[in-house]
Amino acid sequence: MEDARQTPARGEHPADIADRIQNLPGDEAAEVLRALTPADAARVLAEVEPAAAAQVTGALDDAELQALLAVLPHDRAADIAAELPEARRDAALARLQPADSAQVSRLLSYPEDSVGGIMSDRFIALPVDLTIEEALQHLRKLDPATLKGASYLYVTDAHGRLKGTLTVRDLIFRPPGQPLAEFANPDVKFVRVDDDQETVSRQFAQYHYLALPVLEPDGRLVGVVQADRAVAVAQEEATEDMQLMVGLSGEERIFTTWQQAIPRRLPWLLVNLATAFLAAAVVGLFESTIAQWTALAVFLPIVAGQGGNAGMQTLTVIIRGMALGEISGPSGRKALLKEFILGLLNGLAIGIVVGLVGYWWKGSVLLGVVVSLAMFFNMLAAALSGVLIPFALKTMRIDPALASSIFLTTVTDVAGFFFFLGLAALALQVL
Amino acid sequence: MEDARQTPARGEHPADIADRIQNLPGDEAAEVLRALTPADAARVLAEVEPAAAAQVTGALDDAELQALLAVLPHDRAADIAAELPEARRDAALARLQPADSAQVSRLLSYPEDSVGGIMSDRFIALPVDLTIEEALQHLRKLDPATLKGASYLYVTDAHGRLKGTLTVRDLIFRPPGQPLAEFANPDVKFVRVDDDQETVSRQFAQYHYLALPVLEPDGRLVGVVQADRAVAVAQEEATEDMQLMVGLSGEERIFTTWQQAIPRRLPWLLVNLATAFLAAAVVGLFESTIAQWTALAVFLPIVAGQGGNAGMQTLTVIIRGMALGEISGPSGRKALLKEFILGLLNGLAIGIVVGLVGYWWKGSVLLGVVVSLAMFFNMLAAALSGVLIPFALKTMRIDPALASSIFLTTVTDVAGFFFFLGLAALALQVL
Repeated sequence: MEDARQTPARGEHPADIADRIQNLPGDEAAEVLRALTPADAARVLAEVEPAAAAQVTGALDDAELQALLAVLPHDRAADIAAELPEARRDAALARLQPADSAQVSRLLSYPEDSVGGIMSDRFIALPVDLTIEEALQHLRKLDPATLKGASYLYVTDAHGRLKGTLTVRDLIFRPPGQPLAEFANPDVKFVRVDDDQETVSRQFAQYHYLALPVLEPDGRLVGVVQADRAVAVAQEEATEDMQLMVGLSGEERIFTTWQQAIPRRLPWLLVNLATAFLAAAVVGLFESTIAQWTALAVFLPIVAGQGGNAGMQTLTVIIRGMALGEISGPSGRKALLKEFILGLLNGLAIGIVVGLVGYWWKGSVLLGVVVSLAMFFNMLAAALSGVLIPFALKTMRIDPALASSIFLTTVTDVAGFFFFLGLAALALQVL
Repeated sequence: MEDARQTPARGEHPADIADRIQNLPGDEAAEVLRALTPADAARVLAEVEPAAAAQVTGALDDAELQALLAVLPHDRAADIAAELPEARRDAALARLQPADSAQVSRLLSYPEDSVGGIMSDRFIALPVDLTIEEALQHLRKLDPATLKGASYLYVTDAHGRLKGTLTVRDLIFRPPGQPLAEFANPDVKFVRVDDDQETVSRQFAQYHYLALPVLEPDGRLVGVVQADRAVAVAQEEATEDMQLMVGLSGEERIFTTWQQAIPRRLPWLLVNLATAFLAAAVVGLFESTIAQWTALAVFLPIVAGQGGNAGMQTLTVIIRGMALGEISGPSGRKALLKEFILGLLNGLAIGIVVGLVGYWWKGSVLLGVVVSLAMFFNMLAAALSGVLIPFALKTMRIDPALASSIFLTTVTDVAGFFFFLGLAALALQVL
């Protein structure tokens, strides 16, 4: 097989065209789509990041948009529709076939970060009372698109409730007269339509499935999530966590324009500013101490910054551990103990180094001792807050990643300044 | 279907037992494994995080370890073996069947973050000159474990070179006498055995495959990566990036002990300390200015900290964009322009707010103007370095995430202190 026989060589892959047009202005993106056949254009649109969908389709007229949505799988049509302005979305949905429109609307009704928001409604359900031969006849009548990429076949009862799974291979290697009920595997792992999408990537990573069926609370099979979708969800969830930690929206991408980015970034910068003023106020309390001993100003940022960095290490391990489902009850306490020990030992090491440099640089034993102690205490504060902040956010049912680095550096700044300047003031008073 | 019929209810899932024992000391983990049948124990070991493998198997004797490795799929056996002390690994491999030992050793020879390091050698290759009937006979003779989870069947020539793919469904719905060569799909996306594993999660997320064949440079089919593995790889890569950014090893987990964590965290804390002293040296240059005007010390951490936070927002977007493959040539320049504009506007907004608060707090127009300008310039420096640092690391063929937050805060601290104290010194001199 030569590279020249790969799909991309016969024309750009829809996913690659999608990457390209989501970086273009709406009118240029529309030109690219119009130059393709409707089926190809729909394939491209299916691959566009939902966040870029409104922009990419912005310059298409209603009929063009509807023609594309009509050939998309329902779940992709819903993903795109979810990002459109409301009037546009309603107009486009109204033009679809009633059955398609109803199904897309139903998928739209699930929160976008729930399992319902990412599942596909394209799956194969076989009545539990069929024989293998009848099941094969049933399969031959299906749209080939439905068969494509179906990792499992699902067996359901008269109410549409999931009763078991089987594979196409099962149908080949068994006698044609055997009823499905006899060999369908009833031990099925599933997810609920209202579960969080994070659950899904965890389940896939943990149990290695190629597909998971999605059930309503009453047990009815309503969709399926394939592993390939779970890869994208895992990436999305990780991106969201990384972004939330530093005060981003969780949805910013390279192609997000500055006009879209500013209203999302600036508010968190203002929150950060408010917390910075809080820390500055602590410094303000000790302004007369600094006036007496200006060398303190030189060491201030070291004590605070070093604490912030150590705390970020702890925070990152904890938040990622929570996202991957590695942290449960006892391991939470164990993590706190581990980070406390690390804070103690790193604090001792860094405290001694900072103290020695302080003494050597300014020739003052007192400065060395004060900065050393403050550094040690701030490293401990950093370790503890790196664990406690995400746990506190989680307890309040807030995403543990949300702006956690901003909260953390508030603690390490305030505590660092207070320990350092407080100890210095005390030393000046006593000596 | 009721929950009581789910697999976990009939006994804990191997993956869940694995989670549990990787938090236990070696001797307790060994007890848990010994209480299981060898087949079940192997299933559990297959689910243990490679990073915890040495600990989990630490208290097993060589015969016990060998018995487990013998029943594991080769790729999982290689993952575990890679983490064992060398003498132990060699002893265990020597005890395997020669064919298994050779295959595990071959998988071990690939770097662990390469495609070879994550692929499975369990795939179905059918000679291209078979008919459908012959192919079905071939399949019936195979170990059922090989068939399980195989999303595609691969067609190869006499040299083992990949010629195309087909699915089990193709074999059912076509005439038994048809040769495979007539309908196997020759347009196959593949990955190379020496590609980086990041390539794989990108390919899965981008093109939605259930499995990708892995080829040697000469076109021979040597393995396969399934989408379920790609989910775990995507999570692993994201964890690594998040950790590298803040100076962690990329491999730290909740169950990593403090003894393992300290030699990995402390060096980066010391690097951070060195850069903090660099920033402190800038403050040192202006000690006499601070002695004249101690209010400067109060605003110092605001200018630096706020720059650091804004820079982290930029850095996070860029690094994640690089990891997801969203950044190529022109979009890099576009990203730089976008961040420059954001730095300009956020800098203007934050600069004005900080200036006003400075004036209001200390009653000094001069302080307000100085802090406002310094803030503005530092926000620009933050935006530019948030883009340029990862690009510079990438150009030097270093992971763009590596310690990038440490480099970034060095820039924002040094630049922030220099702008603020430099402007203040200048103002004091002129006025």
